[in-house]
Amino acid sequence: MRKLLIIGGSDAGISAALRAKELCPATEVTVVVADRYPNFSICGLPFYLSGEVADWQALAHRTARDIENEGIGLLLQHTAVSIDATQKEVSVRRPQGDLRKLGYDRLILGTGAESIRPRVAGMDLRGVFLLRWMDDAFILERFLSDRQPKSATIVGAGYIGMEMADALTRRGMAVTVVEFADSVLTTLDKEMGQRVETELGRHGVRVNTRVGVTGIVQSGDQLRVLGSGGFSTNSDMVLVAVGAHPRNELALCAGIQTGLKGAIKVDRRMRTNVADIFAAGDCVETRHRLLAQSTYIPLGTIAHKQGRIAGENAVGGDREFGGSLGTQAVKIFDLVAGRTGLRDCEALAAGLKPLTVETEMWDHKAYYPGAHKLWVRITAELGSHRLLGAQVLGHRHSEVSKRVDVFAAAIHNAMSIEDLNDLDLSYTPPLSSPWDPVQMSAQEWSKSARLLTPNPL
Amino acid sequence: MRKLLIIGGSDAGISAALRAKELCPATEVTVVVADRYPNFSICGLPFYLSGEVADWQALAHRTARDIENEGIGLLLQHTAVSIDATQKEVSVRRPQGDLRKLGYDRLILGTGAESIRPRVAGMDLRGVFLLRWMDDAFILERFLSDRQPKSATIVGAGYIGMEMADALTRRGMAVTVVEFADSVLTTLDKEMGQRVETELGRHGVRVNTRVGVTGIVQSGDQLRVLGSGGFSTNSDMVLVAVGAHPRNELALCAGIQTGLKGAIKVDRRMRTNVADIFAAGDCVETRHRLLAQSTYIPLGTIAHKQGRIAGENAVGGDREFGGSLGTQAVKIFDLVAGRTGLRDCEALAAGLKPLTVETEMWDHKAYYPGAHKLWVRITAELGSHRLLGAQVLGHRHSEVSKRVDVFAAAIHNAMSIEDLNDLDLSYTPPLSSPWDPVQMSAQEWSKSARLLTPNPL
Repeated sequence: MRKLLIIGGSDAGISAALRAKELCPATEVTVVVADRYPNFSICGLPFYLSGEVADWQALAHRTARDIENEGIGLLLQHTAVSIDATQKEVSVRRPQGDLRKLGYDRLILGTGAESIRPRVAGMDLRGVFLLRWMDDAFILERFLSDRQPKSATIVGAGYIGMEMADALTRRGMAVTVVEFADSVLTTLDKEMGQRVETELGRHGVRVNTRVGVTGIVQSGDQLRVLGSGGFSTNSDMVLVAVGAHPRNELALCAGIQTGLKGAIKVDRRMRTNVADIFAAGDCVETRHRLLAQSTYIPLGTIAHKQGRIAGENAVGGDREFGGSLGTQAVKIFDLVAGRTGLRDCEALAAGLKPLTVETEMWDHKAYYPGAHKLWVRITAELGSHRLLGAQVLGHRHSEVSKRVDVFAAAIHNAMSIEDLNDLDLSYTPPLSSPWDPVQMSAQEWSKSARLLTPNPL
Repeated sequence: MRKLLIIGGSDAGISAALRAKELCPATEVTVVVADRYPNFSICGLPFYLSGEVADWQALAHRTARDIENEGIGLLLQHTAVSIDATQKEVSVRRPQGDLRKLGYDRLILGTGAESIRPRVAGMDLRGVFLLRWMDDAFILERFLSDRQPKSATIVGAGYIGMEMADALTRRGMAVTVVEFADSVLTTLDKEMGQRVETELGRHGVRVNTRVGVTGIVQSGDQLRVLGSGGFSTNSDMVLVAVGAHPRNELALCAGIQTGLKGAIKVDRRMRTNVADIFAAGDCVETRHRLLAQSTYIPLGTIAHKQGRIAGENAVGGDREFGGSLGTQAVKIFDLVAGRTGLRDCEALAAGLKPLTVETEMWDHKAYYPGAHKLWVRITAELGSHRLLGAQVLGHRHSEVSKRVDVFAAAIHNAMSIEDLNDLDLSYTPPLSSPWDPVQMSAQEWSKSARLLTPNPL
């Protein structure tokens, strides 16, 4: 292995490059980057647009120089246009516009995902935005600075929609959220979503659920978003954030198999069906650890892990991806919401027999100042009591996200509800209780399950 | 099983009572409580003494009424004086001073621990305090209120000493800490202890390490603490917080075997060597999960777990204690320090071949406001790369304690360093990085280990 070529300079691509170079410094590693922003934290864009991150350059996980100092070649503003898997060559368009061929011994695709563009009228109107890449953010930031819009409508109440509702409110704008589902943040149960809606309302965000957007039209100086049931709202701008789908054009042309939502099929070693071509990140199907089947979960954490494994295996390693649990967290104003594993509806869909129990607790001993309510919803399997998933919601200082991670570590290790009580978790009154909320909620689950089954004694 | 008698109304005793009653409501459960404060959070005493908890009654995990409403009988201000294991009777001294015999079918000892009283002159002087039980706190609080001392010397820089340094400083007093070891908080490595010393210094606490206290003498209106190397310091009061040892008098009289530091020997089902007598909490030896041998770790978390197991088994259950990892956390001013598992020195003492690597990171993406430095020290076994322990230090809003718990869950499940990278941990820029600090520090450990061993590829 002499030449490792990587297409894509975001999380998966750069992780792969760094890992390959770390393990095998003699390999020539080149990364083809479509824009000028390799290894930028696109998860940070809402915080740039809110004004909390003053300098967009701070969003770089590493600078181009940092990466080059590791001995990794970067081809910025180069776009890969085709792969010849027989000749082991990739055609790339250079910034000047001409094509150039790059040979490889091993190739890693980290082409990522792109924003879903709903098929409704008005998506091309000035003042309608998508948000995924750095350039999207620059276009939106310029609009915000130049036009000083006073109001915004956000279509889609997923992670990006929620973070942008926070961001634009922070910027002094009146924000309206429109969501098709019957609560916001539908990656969590409705009970959790409703608490998020309360937090949004507390900060002046207007939330409209159960509205399918049917189009956007110009309305004087404003844009009018139209939706089902006669819905209509005017604002100075519209952000459409309804998810992402994998970029697979290059892969398809090279005869690489794709699956769910068009995502590239890979094995647990991140190999595609074409020899010497690996793929990782938002462009691939992701193995779900609990379901032991493929899902599509475009997340930076997974992209980093998969990229690292692809990089290691491309230089001769033999590591398998452990699978994802769909662990996610998001901060919305003063709340943090997180999840890992399966929710009740997902477990049911997978043919399991779940029970989900919600527990409301204090995040730490209530006698110590600053205690906040914390909600935990545990999903586990009836009968076996195997832990399947957990959702946690609470204040941003309530260690919500790392409590999610304690559950994630437990699910990773196939622990049962009762096993959670055996965990030796830390306690000090300002931060927890002698039984951590993770364990108190497990005990509540047990009590509920016991009502459904005979006494084990 | 008709009558379950429990001696001790703190964490272990009340947990046992609640669990027994939950699983077997027909059992008659009685708890003998030496003072008037069943189920109080004695871990909260420093926060009562600091003034942060205004009402001491808020320290109750549950009120006496809550407990009685569960059908549990409480005998307050009753002191058990002897056990007749043949007749299955316990003699208790009632508040009036007379003795009464209580029969039992099963007995659980949760007699707890008491403060170590160093054998140095001056311990009986007015103005010298110990701190473990509610009554200790009331005596100290009255002194603080009535005498308004301006300065204090704290002997011992363990968890209670550190929390009380914070508490008395918060109360406006000048605090001096005297510690025999060469850094404070010796349950963590010296590198961590020194950062805690810096935080103490930043708040005006004077720290004196490597000083063995030799005595306390009256010095006008003040007390003078004398120590090795000519050490001498004057202050208006002295708090001696040099640890605790198990209360085992009752057990010894009943022929119950004791071991380390005099702690009661129990099996994994919390049974003593005497039929139908269980024991749990600060009065027993605790099985260390990694070492698979007994240790003495008096902590509320463990007492709750062991009590719950003793209660379950006493009413016919068959649950084993999973073992402790010595997980602990403490907040000192704006810092939180935590640990789980083995440190390098402890692993060496156990005959293992550890490597300990420290990593300094940001707690979350540095571009998002409010990032703080976070230090993680990972101890793992050379060769196998089995995770043995972790110490984490950082800001109180850096989710330090639940990051410790992610390590605790990993050690509980015998994970290796590389396994940590497979964990699907949550990420959002305000709270973490795509690789959580738990994983970044694991990767640093791997890099250090690789320098010591051949390339695996």
